[in-house]
Amino acid sequence: MIPGTDIPSDGKCEAHLPTAMDLNTDNITQSVIDFFSQGQDERMRFILDRLVNHIHDFARETKLTTDEWRVGLDWLQACGQICTNDRKELITVSDIFGLSTLVEEINHPKPPGATEGSILGPFHSLEAETKSNGDAISEDVSGEPLFVLCTVKDTSGTPIPNVKVHVWEADSHGEYDIEKSNRTKPDGRGIFYSDEQGTFYFNGIVPVPYPILCDGPVGRLFEVSGRHEYRPAHIHFMFEKDGYDNLITALYIQGSKYCDSDAVFGVKQSLVVSIQDMDSETATEYGRADVRSILRYEFVLATDMETEALKKGGLLAVNGIEDEYHGTQP
Amino acid sequence: MIPGTDIPSDGKCEAHLPTAMDLNTDNITQSVIDFFSQGQDERMRFILDRLVNHIHDFARETKLTTDEWRVGLDWLQACGQICTNDRKELITVSDIFGLSTLVEEINHPKPPGATEGSILGPFHSLEAETKSNGDAISEDVSGEPLFVLCTVKDTSGTPIPNVKVHVWEADSHGEYDIEKSNRTKPDGRGIFYSDEQGTFYFNGIVPVPYPILCDGPVGRLFEVSGRHEYRPAHIHFMFEKDGYDNLITALYIQGSKYCDSDAVFGVKQSLVVSIQDMDSETATEYGRADVRSILRYEFVLATDMETEALKKGGLLAVNGIEDEYHGTQP
Repeated sequence: MIPGTDIPSDGKCEAHLPTAMDLNTDNITQSVIDFFSQGQDERMRFILDRLVNHIHDFARETKLTTDEWRVGLDWLQACGQICTNDRKELITVSDIFGLSTLVEEINHPKPPGATEGSILGPFHSLEAETKSNGDAISEDVSGEPLFVLCTVKDTSGTPIPNVKVHVWEADSHGEYDIEKSNRTKPDGRGIFYSDEQGTFYFNGIVPVPYPILCDGPVGRLFEVSGRHEYRPAHIHFMFEKDGYDNLITALYIQGSKYCDSDAVFGVKQSLVVSIQDMDSETATEYGRADVRSILRYEFVLATDMETEALKKGGLLAVNGIEDEYHGTQP
Repeated sequence: MIPGTDIPSDGKCEAHLPTAMDLNTDNITQSVIDFFSQGQDERMRFILDRLVNHIHDFARETKLTTDEWRVGLDWLQACGQICTNDRKELITVSDIFGLSTLVEEINHPKPPGATEGSILGPFHSLEAETKSNGDAISEDVSGEPLFVLCTVKDTSGTPIPNVKVHVWEADSHGEYDIEKSNRTKPDGRGIFYSDEQGTFYFNGIVPVPYPILCDGPVGRLFEVSGRHEYRPAHIHFMFEKDGYDNLITALYIQGSKYCDSDAVFGVKQSLVVSIQDMDSETATEYGRADVRSILRYEFVLATDMETEALKKGGLLAVNGIEDEYHGTQP
């Protein structure tokens, strides 16, 4: 050993292996971080460092009791156990803790004029069928018909053709197709493409407010925390096209109950829209004289470059954590 | 409305219902806390307040990407899904993040002389049979026999009779009974009671180091973080008696590999003990001339009053969080 160093006298340095013994409330955090710091991925090391710090600070600040610790682990286990291909409890957990909205805001800052985002939620499904403009997405005969007529443009106002648009909404009882075990095919959802004028349109139903799934662990948490479990009436939209930042959003219906207290924190004022009476000109143009209500919206997509510029501009630097610590993106 | 206030002019104040719209990275945290603050339980409100703050700070500090968020939720879901009555992945998660040791340290501060605690781990089982002193706990014929001879005393050195002592250890291949789906009865575990002299003793086997279960989500995390997955050789003990603080601990074998780098942060120097050659006097007294090795230990239990005094003494006040915020214990 070279005196005063950890370097062996043969000059060959071995990797430093972290050690741990006699850990207490003061020294355990650094020790756990040291153990998690042996991987190759700089970004992973940074994420685990912050995660360990926050988990430990949470336990120390609350002086978490052994019973509470056990209840918490049991609750997390139950969240995982109730999940199926069609039931995504962990996404709902993220939603009700505001984490989904926060991650959306962090990753998709919007340039002026671009449509704001909203949460994906647990009901997006890859089962959706590709439809043609003008098709119906819902077979729910109890639903009040709604003609949805939208455009997709860029921030300079130029229409964007051939944008892939995922659309999904609950039925007139507030249930999505994937909540129904007896379903035979997708319902209340579809994939459309904008035409040369950036327009897409379909026949849906007037959405209604509905409660998030509260027959599991999330429901138990809502009960003890006194929260209501409702979302305002809305229709989900997701936009994909090369060169444009993916837009996940939703339109909320003006006047719907819970618009100002969405259980999953998704509502933006700019996404609250009025359902209007169908006008004769539009009814004639689209052959929809049978439909009484119409919902119109102009979606505006940011380009990848616009979004990246905003993210690199450090607009999101918060809490004094330096940008260089962000490390490499996975 | 009384001008300048939220108080209706009829004087009847309604409960303030939190509202939320247009949430962004800056204002979402307080909004989520407001939503979670409608329950009756003060302690629950405090815990949720701290939890929301830490989850959000973690996402903001790391600028968590949408992909990372999804990987994280999928990982948590997988942890829950792999759980069975005999497989407790969430406890292992808590163990490898050092949370189990931290919660143990917070809840069971020890007066001078009392035996230090260690983690419960995922292998304690309620299936254990009650045994008599001198019984064997292991049917593993490949294991090297070990006579374990211990006493239980209080901090003044007085023996404590009739303490319920749970004992459990892995077999000579490092596997616990509950990991074996073909088991017909408990093995490698038992419940003993200390006698009038505070003594309990049993025939076990010399424990070996073993890897924690790495065929699931925990294993994937260990892989990317470059950590080894081994625990040093040890035997688990849990002590229960009215009036005494429950002691969950383990004895670690001097010279065992991984004693200074336990994958779950459980080792204390005071719990590392040497296996010794059986002496003729003890062999005669306990009729164990057939056994070559002996492990001795004097366990010292704190009383409930001693532990509560330490907890109330604020020795654990950390991070500037005031004691009064601790609220009522559940």
